[in-house]
Amino acid sequence: MTEKTPQGNNFDNWLDSYAARANTLSVSEVRALFAVVSRPEVVSLAGGMPYVSALPKELLESSYESMMASRGNLALQYGGGQGDLQLREQIRELMALEGISSSVEDIVVTTGSQQGLDLLGGLFLDEGDVVLAESPSYVGALGIFRHYEAHVEHVHTDDEGMDPDAMQEAITRLKAAGRKIKFLYLVPNFGNPSGVTLTEERRHRIVEICRREHILILEDNPYGLLYFANKPPVALRSYEDDCVIYLGSFSKILAPGFRVGYVLAPPAIRDKLVLANESAILSPSSFSQMLISEYMAKADWQGQIDTFRGVYRERRDAALDAMREYLPGLKTTRPDGGFYLWVTLPDGVDSKAMLPLAVKELVAYTPGTAFFANGTGQSNLRISFCYPTPDNIKLGIKRLASVINLQSELLETFVSKTGGVK
Amino acid sequence: MTEKTPQGNNFDNWLDSYAARANTLSVSEVRALFAVVSRPEVVSLAGGMPYVSALPKELLESSYESMMASRGNLALQYGGGQGDLQLREQIRELMALEGISSSVEDIVVTTGSQQGLDLLGGLFLDEGDVVLAESPSYVGALGIFRHYEAHVEHVHTDDEGMDPDAMQEAITRLKAAGRKIKFLYLVPNFGNPSGVTLTEERRHRIVEICRREHILILEDNPYGLLYFANKPPVALRSYEDDCVIYLGSFSKILAPGFRVGYVLAPPAIRDKLVLANESAILSPSSFSQMLISEYMAKADWQGQIDTFRGVYRERRDAALDAMREYLPGLKTTRPDGGFYLWVTLPDGVDSKAMLPLAVKELVAYTPGTAFFANGTGQSNLRISFCYPTPDNIKLGIKRLASVINLQSELLETFVSKTGGVK
Repeated sequence: MTEKTPQGNNFDNWLDSYAARANTLSVSEVRALFAVVSRPEVVSLAGGMPYVSALPKELLESSYESMMASRGNLALQYGGGQGDLQLREQIRELMALEGISSSVEDIVVTTGSQQGLDLLGGLFLDEGDVVLAESPSYVGALGIFRHYEAHVEHVHTDDEGMDPDAMQEAITRLKAAGRKIKFLYLVPNFGNPSGVTLTEERRHRIVEICRREHILILEDNPYGLLYFANKPPVALRSYEDDCVIYLGSFSKILAPGFRVGYVLAPPAIRDKLVLANESAILSPSSFSQMLISEYMAKADWQGQIDTFRGVYRERRDAALDAMREYLPGLKTTRPDGGFYLWVTLPDGVDSKAMLPLAVKELVAYTPGTAFFANGTGQSNLRISFCYPTPDNIKLGIKRLASVINLQSELLETFVSKTGGVK
Repeated sequence: MTEKTPQGNNFDNWLDSYAARANTLSVSEVRALFAVVSRPEVVSLAGGMPYVSALPKELLESSYESMMASRGNLALQYGGGQGDLQLREQIRELMALEGISSSVEDIVVTTGSQQGLDLLGGLFLDEGDVVLAESPSYVGALGIFRHYEAHVEHVHTDDEGMDPDAMQEAITRLKAAGRKIKFLYLVPNFGNPSGVTLTEERRHRIVEICRREHILILEDNPYGLLYFANKPPVALRSYEDDCVIYLGSFSKILAPGFRVGYVLAPPAIRDKLVLANESAILSPSSFSQMLISEYMAKADWQGQIDTFRGVYRERRDAALDAMREYLPGLKTTRPDGGFYLWVTLPDGVDSKAMLPLAVKELVAYTPGTAFFANGTGQSNLRISFCYPTPDNIKLGIKRLASVINLQSELLETFVSKTGGVK
């Protein structure tokens, strides 16, 4: 946020009153795009909104009716801070699909997995603590780590996910410098924004290193069930109970409008999480939880996830086809699931500076800078293929190509005129 | 939470990893009662659960159907961090009933007003900052202030609410000692736990003092519309825009299971609140917001609040009648609205120590100690009349009387035997 000056309309009488941590809040690059996204003539490849139109409303309606008939007064009431037991039982079954064996006692329901991250940040991060993260990493997690005044150390990441050797090197270097490393934060399946999946071999090595180095792994896995061909490797949590905190969500396999996510944590951490949840919101929404629970009990939710897989696979294909057709020279990741492509721009083209030009050409994307805490990312952008139709994805990438190509040409002209200085 | 020792079953490998603020979390006395409350043979006068059974489910069902028909895909999707515009318009009208004129631009929707308090604590409270609060004060707010490592200064409060002279004295004393006072936190109408309402004359004086002393007022008003005879005085926010942050909720006038509350704040603070909300949860539940919005648009919600008023008035009467019949010697507040009575025990009877005996006699209450940050409150207890039927309220208070009277008799015997030493 830009603080208004005393001369402005919104003079802030309370500038002297804020806590130090209030200065960590700033308008995210993603948020600044919200206004753009809502204009119908713009093809938005920016947001990470699931395609909820693919969800049959009858399924929800019958769930609503039977839930209100059986548990209506409970659904309208305050609940416990840990979440509904029946839903936690279903979450346990859901996690089993990714190889995780767990107890309902160790699951905490949160207001989306974002709140789970926020609570964990609050429990563990003192000012100056270090969080290891992929390069690039999820913008919403970076915001939370910044809010708790932690330092994010990006670790080299390639098409096989985070590089364990680079991670070990960073740990050794940071520990030698006296830094306290609290978390490794990972989106191992179809990462946001990279689309990359961590290989099985690297999962083993990363878990082993973190166990030895006494570093908690935050495994954030909203996309794991949205694979297009083969299932991704089993969750890191399936190898190791005590050093992995696992975060999941109903936002991508059902709908984000309910704001229901969950955290699976070792017992002592889970106890603190429940208390932190109660302090922050008293209890997660009973209504949302019980509606989802009824949906899980009554509807063919696995069939519905298959439907989502088909929708997103078609869109991923449309995006890759369009990249091949309109931007054949550019490097892009080739995700096997999830919502995103990560594109590397031609030398010298700046994704953040280019965005207003793209919007003028009626296409939006997210600049790579949003996904780094260290000021880099100018040469990348994220394309979301989750929400627009395949035709619109192609149209959007065609428009994007004209903007990128124009930028490249201008740069080449400039470079040749100035004798090769970039 | 009691930390398990290394010898226990839940050895915590991560004890060295928590942030300093994690140590501020402890099991609240209210939470410890949850297990008790759920046993059907116990009459619970402990919880603050609204009587949601009085809510006609047909009203909600028709709201659900028309909302899904008109805005279903939006309700299932992520929303903005500030909340749904249509709901904010209705919140503006709701607040007008308490004398507040506001702009929809300055309203932020939160996951219950508890989350509003949590976000404000995060924005303003550094370690050691002071919050002024009533004596007694809402347990959930005290937990948040503790979580942000603030010092709560309880100010003398009587049947007319917080005493402005005592408040001024505390401010002068604390400022002279170099302390930074960030908030005055108040539940001005039918307070939790006192049931007391701040008089109009004191509202004016308190607002005037806070304006002069540059202290933000957090006016937390979940109960204002649940008056039994006359409306309470207009909100403090109606006298003063810039130094009052107003918190409201749908939990008591509709249902807490949706977890929808709101904050009205001066523009610069509102900007930061929206960012803090986005950081913590991305966006409040679109589904809950839109369902409530449809209910507000279609149902006779004011008539429903009248129904709630009648239900709670009858229960307040039952509670006061039973106090008169079974515990005529005890001082109690006589609330004109809301959910709670605040009872002063006979000299020497300790509400916290007595609780297990009461539960043995199949009645539960909340000990006064829950509502003080300074270790006092042993001689008080809170009776909630919101949830049990009038007959059960009477039965509960009858049981409570037998426990209190037995304690008094034991004390008198002890005192006379030991020659008057208490």
